[in-house]
Amino acid sequence: MDFSHDTLPQRVTFARAGAAAAVASEIARLDAERVMLIAGESAAQPADRISELIPIAVRHSDIVMHVPVDAADRARAAAADHDADAIVCIGGGSATGLAKAVALTTGLPIVAVPTTYAGSEATPVWGLTDNRHKTTGIDVAVLPRAVVYDATLLASLQTDLAVASGLNALAHCIDAMWAPHADPIDRALAGEGIRALASGLPRVASAGLAGIEETLYGAYLAATAFASAGSGMHHKICHVLGGMFNLPHAQTHSVVLPHVLAFNAPNAVDAANRIATAFGSDTASIGLAQLRAAVDAPRALSDYGLAESDLPAAVEAILPVIPSNNPTPVTPENLAALLHAAWKGDEPR
Amino acid sequence: MDFSHDTLPQRVTFARAGAAAAVASEIARLDAERVMLIAGESAAQPADRISELIPIAVRHSDIVMHVPVDAADRARAAAADHDADAIVCIGGGSATGLAKAVALTTGLPIVAVPTTYAGSEATPVWGLTDNRHKTTGIDVAVLPRAVVYDATLLASLQTDLAVASGLNALAHCIDAMWAPHADPIDRALAGEGIRALASGLPRVASAGLAGIEETLYGAYLAATAFASAGSGMHHKICHVLGGMFNLPHAQTHSVVLPHVLAFNAPNAVDAANRIATAFGSDTASIGLAQLRAAVDAPRALSDYGLAESDLPAAVEAILPVIPSNNPTPVTPENLAALLHAAWKGDEPR
Repeated sequence: MDFSHDTLPQRVTFARAGAAAAVASEIARLDAERVMLIAGESAAQPADRISELIPIAVRHSDIVMHVPVDAADRARAAAADHDADAIVCIGGGSATGLAKAVALTTGLPIVAVPTTYAGSEATPVWGLTDNRHKTTGIDVAVLPRAVVYDATLLASLQTDLAVASGLNALAHCIDAMWAPHADPIDRALAGEGIRALASGLPRVASAGLAGIEETLYGAYLAATAFASAGSGMHHKICHVLGGMFNLPHAQTHSVVLPHVLAFNAPNAVDAANRIATAFGSDTASIGLAQLRAAVDAPRALSDYGLAESDLPAAVEAILPVIPSNNPTPVTPENLAALLHAAWKGDEPR
Repeated sequence: MDFSHDTLPQRVTFARAGAAAAVASEIARLDAERVMLIAGESAAQPADRISELIPIAVRHSDIVMHVPVDAADRARAAAADHDADAIVCIGGGSATGLAKAVALTTGLPIVAVPTTYAGSEATPVWGLTDNRHKTTGIDVAVLPRAVVYDATLLASLQTDLAVASGLNALAHCIDAMWAPHADPIDRALAGEGIRALASGLPRVASAGLAGIEETLYGAYLAATAFASAGSGMHHKICHVLGGMFNLPHAQTHSVVLPHVLAFNAPNAVDAANRIATAFGSDTASIGLAQLRAAVDAPRALSDYGLAESDLPAAVEAILPVIPSNNPTPVTPENLAALLHAAWKGDEPR
């Protein structure tokens, strides 16, 4: 046991059908009097309800995916022009990302109201894109001071998107077990996240609010653990595949995850035990397979445009970015076998 | 799922035989140049080693149990006289408590180096005594910014004291499962704490550093969960018994805990499942019984000076302070039965 773990300050609230009152309470705690409200068209309704209870200085709906620098500059200008003293953002990763971009240069506190399972609200990671090049960084100033989860805001989320987003959160948990900076606290939080996701995700499909709440809770813990532990083998593979071959994000994660789990589990006994316990299954891989079957998860990268002939280049690009402390040593041969199985949709070994 | 959870900022480091270097690193992160070092006689050796690596403005060894107000005032005066800009405290609850008393009025950041399993270093709770009256409060300013755990500093701790202190930490975990403000995050942290304490505590007796580290880790999580969840039925009972009859703190906790667990478990299914899983046992009570047998825990309050004739007065004093949301409703009759069993040393039912 030899580690350092930074616990970051954040207040998280679960309030079913209570987002507006909970946000008002957080704004009062911050003594904020001139709020910048960031919400796109799809979040207009909850934004209206929240607006009735807090002092709004400016409402900003100019949200662009991946937070382009010029969109960030427009939002920063709006905050300055209206002398905002706090930010409320309602939406998915793009709305939260824009709020973080404003906080990065202004230090304004954020109250985040997530409408997806992306988890950005629970991390100090910011990202900006410029000419299709993405820059990311870590700054505790961008970590929302408060997060308000209201399951009713996700009730209309399309089921396949919800499942993909939830499986992405599950990948955060599993990779956090052996990522470069993983420590026992990360593993404990990730284990609780797996437990919640395994219980909630199959029920998200039937749009039950209790299932959505458990999935939100799991996704929140997943993001917390992942932000502390860093990117492990799984995320390195998915990042390279996504960038080189323009594969869809969530599906790539869903296909690759069981292969990385089967690859690492034999040499990560504590992690494998924790994952199995969290799933309530005999082994980690059985638990993941049962959940993937229950939600009808994607099985093969070949279904998403990857060609068998692309695999050698993928191996070459992935090999140098695998963390050196990955539980199972990675070789060109075993990595090629892993990718081939993920491409073909074979059972993970 | 309807709760708010405040996660408080703290950096925790486990560094076996590495306290001095880790403290120096934390002092550098704080940009501190004039450190007040609080350490009693028993911590003089590690204090000497740490002093060699950090800029000391004043060394303070005037530590008194329960932090009397006049002792706090002397420490505050020393900090002011020497223009201290940070505090390092080495020791148990009294040393940490004195550092907190100074931080409360000065805002100075604390780096804590615990030498017991008390857990005060992981909470924002402060306490002061005046004419034998104890005042406590909560202020995030007194929460140490950093904690450094070094198992070698606990290697010479007397075994029976270590076991009592570890069982006290276990009581924090179990009571945090149903305390008034308990939420799922508290329960997850408490569950991990139980797992670590159940694994570490039996090995503390043989003074193995790995067992000490696991127990420290469990005690840290216990304090975190307990500070968030508040005092549950168990702590209310022990607080009243200790105050009215001057019973020894750790032994009282150790005797009462299995009776409260057996009392609440049938009506706290999620908590009972989490505790059983953490112990790796069939039921929560079996797991606790096995651990208590392994460490030869105290069994009866009658062994510590409580008379059977004291029980009616105890029932009367305890009844009004039991949290109203305790899982099993408490009546004069079932509370009297519980206390009688704890007094006599009967098996918990």
